[in-house]
Amino acid sequence: MSSPEFSIIEEFFASRAGGPNESLVLGIGDDCAVIDVPSDKQIAVSTDTLVENVHFLENSEPELLGHKVLAVNLSDLAAMGASPAWASLAITLPAIDKAWLASFAKGFFELAERYSLQLIGGDTTRGPLSITVNVMGLLPKQQRLMRSGANVGDDIYVSGHIGIAGLGLEKARQGYLNMMDAELCSYLKPNPQVALGRELLNVATSCIDVSDGLSADLSHLLKASGVGASVWDECLPVTESVRQHASKLSDDLWPYSTGDDYELCFTLPSNLNADELSKLHKYDITKIGVIEKEAGLRVEVKNGKIFTLNKGYDHFAS
Amino acid sequence: MSSPEFSIIEEFFASRAGGPNESLVLGIGDDCAVIDVPSDKQIAVSTDTLVENVHFLENSEPELLGHKVLAVNLSDLAAMGASPAWASLAITLPAIDKAWLASFAKGFFELAERYSLQLIGGDTTRGPLSITVNVMGLLPKQQRLMRSGANVGDDIYVSGHIGIAGLGLEKARQGYLNMMDAELCSYLKPNPQVALGRELLNVATSCIDVSDGLSADLSHLLKASGVGASVWDECLPVTESVRQHASKLSDDLWPYSTGDDYELCFTLPSNLNADELSKLHKYDITKIGVIEKEAGLRVEVKNGKIFTLNKGYDHFAS
Repeated sequence: MSSPEFSIIEEFFASRAGGPNESLVLGIGDDCAVIDVPSDKQIAVSTDTLVENVHFLENSEPELLGHKVLAVNLSDLAAMGASPAWASLAITLPAIDKAWLASFAKGFFELAERYSLQLIGGDTTRGPLSITVNVMGLLPKQQRLMRSGANVGDDIYVSGHIGIAGLGLEKARQGYLNMMDAELCSYLKPNPQVALGRELLNVATSCIDVSDGLSADLSHLLKASGVGASVWDECLPVTESVRQHASKLSDDLWPYSTGDDYELCFTLPSNLNADELSKLHKYDITKIGVIEKEAGLRVEVKNGKIFTLNKGYDHFAS
Repeated sequence: MSSPEFSIIEEFFASRAGGPNESLVLGIGDDCAVIDVPSDKQIAVSTDTLVENVHFLENSEPELLGHKVLAVNLSDLAAMGASPAWASLAITLPAIDKAWLASFAKGFFELAERYSLQLIGGDTTRGPLSITVNVMGLLPKQQRLMRSGANVGDDIYVSGHIGIAGLGLEKARQGYLNMMDAELCSYLKPNPQVALGRELLNVATSCIDVSDGLSADLSHLLKASGVGASVWDECLPVTESVRQHASKLSDDLWPYSTGDDYELCFTLPSNLNADELSKLHKYDITKIGVIEKEAGLRVEVKNGKIFTLNKGYDHFAS
């Protein structure tokens, strides 16, 4: 095929996209891909866009971008309890740069292959750098994790640590580039909580991923469930360096407003049986609060003072 | 919800996205949408991006953009014979402009509602204007139109007229804005051939939509089918104004290289029964050539001279 667009897709993407199998009837190369969904499954679908200078810094390492744009979409599947299955990739880039594309594809496929996710289509266009991924996952019929199921009295949990990626972003902005650094790595190469999400199906009463900041995301969950919550700051899983950063900013609540962690925040019935709870504790999860009837998100800090929070990262803030 | 992103989605999109039904288990508002695919159906998926100053002119009318970005995706479903069902919409725009968004949503939903297509998710981000749509359609199991099924001896058809949108683009570039003009309208507000595509299922041996130019798109079909073709220029459905434009450019083959028509190009067995053929002729279709064993696309012009073509619009050409 003579068109550069087609040779790009063939050279960097179609060759690693994986051939037809029992579910993928037709992969990349025709006007559409065709999927045959197993009769006991339903599909979860999500879309996220990353834009240069907004969601990632100029001259970001393409291999890390390839990872991250898929990771943020997989995080949405994780929050629904779905198993990754297929993705479409729309890349807009200023000009063909084969080294850039090869590196981007490396990062993308390394993560895709970890979950046996197949790339089934996409579009490459010329313009300011941005990347949109549409991801599809499979769920057992009638099962899903939603934001709207939290009940008064449920316990609130988060996975991993909060605020690490925010600290990583600060380091990235300062040009710090050592990927052995846990904070930088957490920001540049987030690890979607797919396995935990699957484990939470039929156990958690509600779930959301922490992408825009814990206070914003938990507030979405509370609103969808028609409830409120109290969170105990001393229980929040934050590292010493995150505490120090917050303290330097004279903003003890900074960890609640910083985004990009891609952890899960979820609620469990307080009477969950010990076996189920111990299964979940194989993952790094922490109880941070409780669902209450009164609307709003209240954070109780050490001295007993209570703050009400509900803001996070705003995509249109200047 | 306090974040502008959420209020944009709610105000302009979620409110018209349509509620859950027998297939849409969960629509906009959670981490993913959830779809339950009817057991006798499979899914066709396609993604296309439109970028300002590449796929559309600066300051384009947002209502027309909302129509066009969905239309170009529906055209891919049409080429597969699929019935439109769901779409995800990722909009990147420099700043919130409520008048722009309201107008964009009007164009998008007017076309979506024509096909009972439901918007199931999306992302709004800040950055240079571009729009990506991921569209999903339904196909009866084991049925689909592909590029790869053309056989030697099959007749080649196109729907509608070729080159009209190209002429419309020339007018748009000159700032001509009368939407009563058929050429301008064809470029700015293409009409995807969804009904024809469905009619072609189980009848046509191959199909592709004409987006990058007839010579490029037919060449993709020929390559996928492992065949060649001869096309008779005097049969090509072109208007007098398109002929005149080509003549003015001293390029009689201009209609073959110009894109954006979003018609279908397909092949039919030469022995197709009269009933089937007459059903298809309710649509505006024209036989333009024949599939041959010898690779390549040959265009025979009036004086008997034969040209070999295979180039169309190149997304990365400067």
